[in-house]
Amino acid sequence: MSGTYDLRRTAVLLVDPYNDFLSEGGKIWPRVEPVAQEVGLLGNLRCVVGSAREVGARVVFVPHRRWEPGDYETWDHPNPTQRSIMERHSFARGTWGGEFHPDFQPQPGEVVIHEHWAQSGFANTDLDFQLKQHGISHVVLVGLLANTCIESTARFAMELGYHVTLVRDATAAFQPEMMHAAHELNGPTFAHAILTTAELVAALREGAA
Amino acid sequence: MSGTYDLRRTAVLLVDPYNDFLSEGGKIWPRVEPVAQEVGLLGNLRCVVGSAREVGARVVFVPHRRWEPGDYETWDHPNPTQRSIMERHSFARGTWGGEFHPDFQPQPGEVVIHEHWAQSGFANTDLDFQLKQHGISHVVLVGLLANTCIESTARFAMELGYHVTLVRDATAAFQPEMMHAAHELNGPTFAHAILTTAELVAALREGAA
Amino acid sequence: MSGTYDLRRTAVLLVDPYNDFLSEGGKIWPRVEPVAQEVGLLGNLRCVVGSAREVGARVVFVPHRRWEPGDYETWDHPNPTQRSIMERHSFARGTWGGEFHPDFQPQPGEVVIHEHWAQSGFANTDLDFQLKQHGISHVVLVGLLANTCIESTARFAMELGYHVTLVRDATAAFQPEMMHAAHELNGPTFAHAILTTAELVAALREGAA
Amino acid sequence: MSGTYDLRRTAVLLVDPYNDFLSEGGKIWPRVEPVAQEVGLLGNLRCVVGSAREVGARVVFVPHRRWEPGDYETWDHPNPTQRSIMERHSFARGTWGGEFHPDFQPQPGEVVIHEHWAQSGFANTDLDFQLKQHGISHVVLVGLLANTCIESTARFAMELGYHVTLVRDATAAFQPEMMHAAHELNGPTFAHAILTTAELVAALREGAA
Repeated sequence: MSGTYDLRRTAVLLVDPYNDFLSEGGKIWPRVEPVAQEVGLLGNLRCVVGSAREVGARVVFVPHRRWEPGDYETWDHPNPTQRSIMERHSFARGTWGGEFHPDFQPQPGEVVIHEHWAQSGFANTDLDFQLKQHGISHVVLVGLLANTCIESTARFAMELGYHVTLVRDATAAFQPEMMHAAHELNGPTFAHAILTTAELVAALREGAA
Repeated sequence: MSGTYDLRRTAVLLVDPYNDFLSEGGKIWPRVEPVAQEVGLLGNLRCVVGSAREVGARVVFVPHRRWEPGDYETWDHPNPTQRSIMERHSFARGTWGGEFHPDFQPQPGEVVIHEHWAQSGFANTDLDFQLKQHGISHVVLVGLLANTCIESTARFAMELGYHVTLVRDATAAFQPEMMHAAHELNGPTFAHAILTTAELVAALREGAA
Repeated sequence: MSGTYDLRRTAVLLVDPYNDFLSEGGKIWPRVEPVAQEVGLLGNLRCVVGSAREVGARVVFVPHRRWEPGDYETWDHPNPTQRSIMERHSFARGTWGGEFHPDFQPQPGEVVIHEHWAQSGFANTDLDFQLKQHGISHVVLVGLLANTCIESTARFAMELGYHVTLVRDATAAFQPEMMHAAHELNGPTFAHAILTTAELVAALREGAA
Repeated sequence: MSGTYDLRRTAVLLVDPYNDFLSEGGKIWPRVEPVAQEVGLLGNLRCVVGSAREVGARVVFVPHRRWEPGDYETWDHPNPTQRSIMERHSFARGTWGGEFHPDFQPQPGEVVIHEHWAQSGFANTDLDFQLKQHGISHVVLVGLLANTCIESTARFAMELGYHVTLVRDATAAFQPEMMHAAHELNGPTFAHAILTTAELVAALREGAA
């Protein structure tokens, strides 16, 4: 699968680039690290985000809910991930772990979407609305995790009518078989393109030519 | 994981029970058959649907778009599954393959949702609305395919605030590793319960006691 | 307020053009007729739809639920309009009143959206999705009623990120003060343009030049 | 129209209770004041919120976007209200006008929804999700303005499957005819109950008996 991109209508969605996920010392980094190192996650994220800015494609930040005291406690049925967050306090607001990694900071004019409570960056947020107000029809998903937030955001994007691109080495997961599921088993049923970082960057540059 | 069910607030969502998926001679049955036979799909679907009706839980039909001439042809970017449907005409309207399997026919008063265009039974349909108008807070997903329509419908249900139950032997997929991905890798991150048919039926009967 | 339209990205949404609303002998026509005659509704609808087709803007049909036996009966809380439809059987499926007016028939390739249950053509339907798959960013709303289905569809369109145009003489309502409310009190808070048919047609032709 | 309320499933949605709307010195108070004084808005809001807390119905805060520098500037088509906010900086974040009125402060455990960009408290926010996670099926809308945010939130609530109650003297608008439009022309087509504060409080107490 390949992709061609009208850069005025393309956005890179950078999902959950928190220190807890991406930095040494982050709470979830140890579970992500093996796959992240194998695919070269940090370097590829820098490359995707840098290339998008260079060619003039929009970068949109899609952050998970930063944990606060009381979160989920009055809900009828938090999901398993949320129950686990109630214990480990991932992405806690006001802490270093809940800040974006220093290499992935919003630039002036870049949109930061409302925090999502679960997996999909579209669910219960202004992501679809902000994409429409900026004329976006094509989304490229990078960040974490391949089989949870990235996959749910991608599945929602397709159902909402967007053209969806996954980038197989600009994401990670807790286990290699989760990457396999995301990119070989599930992604091919709903995504319009599944590229490597190198292929994506080439396609973006082609769009800029 | 287990589940307890208030039967007045519980619905079984029966996804895509078409002859093309479930019957000898159906267009997609050959790709589903190995897993379906292994898990005992048809018997388990009969058991889930029969038990739900018996205890008074609502059964809701969640059908895929029945293919019609012209489908997807004017769209900017049909997804890979839709491009394939344009060739093989799955679930074609007016044909046997696009009828529900004879054992899975709506009973008087049972709700049939608008057809979904892609994978999620909630996307671009009245499923969420109909569930609310019938007081449903808990959904149990059965039917096809485990890693596409069932998984997307389940991911959407969780994001919409429903309690979500998967039934590991009342669904099927093209390959065993897709079942593994749905129930061991992805489902445990978003579903509130992942049961066998036997466990579900026991829980429904407990709810009726 | 004025409007400029990129015709490839503009759709006319024709809402509920049923015989019951628009034709002599229709069940609701007597309540619509005074305002319809005053603004020249039928002629203006023909003009808007004809002009859109002429210049190559897309015409999209947005139909209300056609009443069927059983409708709303199992719902927890049908709204007042739905309770009234349960008695008068407006737009009954399979009847002349539930057919589109003969002058407003879908042409080959024109999209007909899923039927909406209440007022908004976006709610519980595939309207947003179909607009995205056809590259639409600007919607022009015509049809019935100005303060119910047209207004709700317009309010939803704005919230979804679309540019919204109302056409003050290509709609009608049961009372003149409902037209006033729609176009002078409420519309100016959410619509991007409120035009006459003549102004709209001029703007569409300008877009085609 | 009357209403009966299961208090465990009922929420009062308090929309936009900002100083800019409700307090002497607020930026928009002068335009709201005549109608607010006439209906006794402040006293009625205190009465509705106090009664809800007393009987154990949930109070949910539904706040408008607090203006920040840069808001709407990169959007393709801000609506007329948003264009006006760009000039007058209503509900500016970090200012007194963008704080809730002192009598309407969230109590511990009360949910504050994501800020809405336009009129509907459901659009692009987590309101529907939070209501589901708290088992709510019935919503009572109070706050501002009757024909914009209250009406759009109410129209969306009905389309989402909720039972909707308007309270005719616990809201206000810029002109009396806007109140008339909201409660006599439009509300009766979509709302399940339109009550006075006194009638609502009696119904809530009945629910508590």
